[in-house]
Amino acid sequence: MAAGALQSVALIGVGLIGGSWVLALREAGLIGGTVTGCGRSPENLEVARQCGIIDHATTDPQRAVRGAELVVLAVPLGAVRGALEAIRDDLADDAIVTDVGSAKRCVVDDARLVLGDAAVRFVPGHPIAGNEKSGAAAAFPELFRNRRVILTPDADTDKAAAARVTALWESVGASVATMTAAHHDEVLAATSHLPHMLAYSLVDTLSRWSDRDEIFAYAAGGFRDFTRIASSDPEMWRDICLANREALMEVMERYMADLQELREAVRTGDGERLEAVFSHAKATRDRFVAMLES
Amino acid sequence: MAAGALQSVALIGVGLIGGSWVLALREAGLIGGTVTGCGRSPENLEVARQCGIIDHATTDPQRAVRGAELVVLAVPLGAVRGALEAIRDDLADDAIVTDVGSAKRCVVDDARLVLGDAAVRFVPGHPIAGNEKSGAAAAFPELFRNRRVILTPDADTDKAAAARVTALWESVGASVATMTAAHHDEVLAATSHLPHMLAYSLVDTLSRWSDRDEIFAYAAGGFRDFTRIASSDPEMWRDICLANREALMEVMERYMADLQELREAVRTGDGERLEAVFSHAKATRDRFVAMLES
Repeated sequence: MAAGALQSVALIGVGLIGGSWVLALREAGLIGGTVTGCGRSPENLEVARQCGIIDHATTDPQRAVRGAELVVLAVPLGAVRGALEAIRDDLADDAIVTDVGSAKRCVVDDARLVLGDAAVRFVPGHPIAGNEKSGAAAAFPELFRNRRVILTPDADTDKAAAARVTALWESVGASVATMTAAHHDEVLAATSHLPHMLAYSLVDTLSRWSDRDEIFAYAAGGFRDFTRIASSDPEMWRDICLANREALMEVMERYMADLQELREAVRTGDGERLEAVFSHAKATRDRFVAMLES
Repeated sequence: MAAGALQSVALIGVGLIGGSWVLALREAGLIGGTVTGCGRSPENLEVARQCGIIDHATTDPQRAVRGAELVVLAVPLGAVRGALEAIRDDLADDAIVTDVGSAKRCVVDDARLVLGDAAVRFVPGHPIAGNEKSGAAAAFPELFRNRRVILTPDADTDKAAAARVTALWESVGASVATMTAAHHDEVLAATSHLPHMLAYSLVDTLSRWSDRDEIFAYAAGGFRDFTRIASSDPEMWRDICLANREALMEVMERYMADLQELREAVRTGDGERLEAVFSHAKATRDRFVAMLES
């Protein structure tokens, strides 16, 4: 067991992200005590127990957080406020609370509103990792290795709490960056939330084609990769859209204007313009991949 | 050497698709003689020779096709007509000509116009395979294994020629379907050409963001998969857009209307509608992947 290992952890929402983090912390020797998992589905909690993610299971958030040093909120964004309300009165005085939500302004607002003074020990976080699977059964400890985690503490956030959460993420192989919640939400709207809208919308459009089955029969690997994110959890993504509505609307607007221009180039047969857009996009994307792989 | 192996093949355009097909035909023992490669770039032709794709290289299409039993056109769609004009007078009387282009109506029109009566031995084809790489160096013989190839012969097409091309594709592990050129173009506009437009346009939009470098720094695996097709060859895709303009415009129109509706649901905070679209898309996509893997 590593020095400073956690004696008691509460995991509220036991899915891919929360489950993987706990598994990774266990592998790193940073959990010396017990993990109590709290969720809506007894079946999923039982899976989590069998997978070695949690030691105890409960559907009662109050019981889960009693005595916990670390409380991890890993529920859909729309459930964050309710979860905070449920645990508020049972949090230990020195408990550190953190989350893994894909939008951060709404979570920060919820924490301030619900936790009051205790919000200083709430460290908002977002690991930039995941895949299209969900649930405890999908969790695996390597998920965060060489991935980025964004934390969005503000001036009021307890420095020791932020440092502890940073260390816990770094111990599982992630690199941690800090920025404002508003900036996080803008960046993620562009790189994650917008692509999800495009993929969901594409599959939706094609699924309403009259010869739908044939359409999909001739789709190939490129289509499978392009639409992988359209297999993501609908409830989670509904909540992300609602939570990051403003930033998402702005990037959708920009994107639709650019796509309209591209369509205009197709319509007028402007080969020069088409090739310029494609070449520029290819060069940008190739640089991005080289950066990811370096 | 298999019975009926080809004694002389001309490969006009030596890239990923044409190169991979020749490599696969060689592995299957279906090339008993020589392959002459013709292209614009002497460097690429030399790579193709070193990779064992071609035996002889030339930049002169007329020389390439002389005496060839099988002529494979694997050039960007915009270069098809010029290539046909260049080889027309030097084709052997019984030569079978086929292509691998991603749009078929334009190729059929070009062949009729340029080849006249000899167009009956032109078998339009499109292997639904490929990746974002290009050039002879990217070719590999397994590319078509368990993939689909669409042929679009019409009532005038020589049945023996179509059967021969079908057999050559099946011998490298592909399954061959036949449909009209117009139908091919509609299906591919939806499953391939539209997704490419969306991916190119997304990378283009983000690349013009003021904090572009940061944007890409926080993009993750989902983004990489989603934009993989934006690393495809710009010239090839320019030609596909121009060649399949009508069908592509129609699917872009439909898609933009649907995306506009989705944005409206985001704007009004219509969680029920968002979840319905996402759930429906996820169910459709999961079924598609199960079908691909079965």
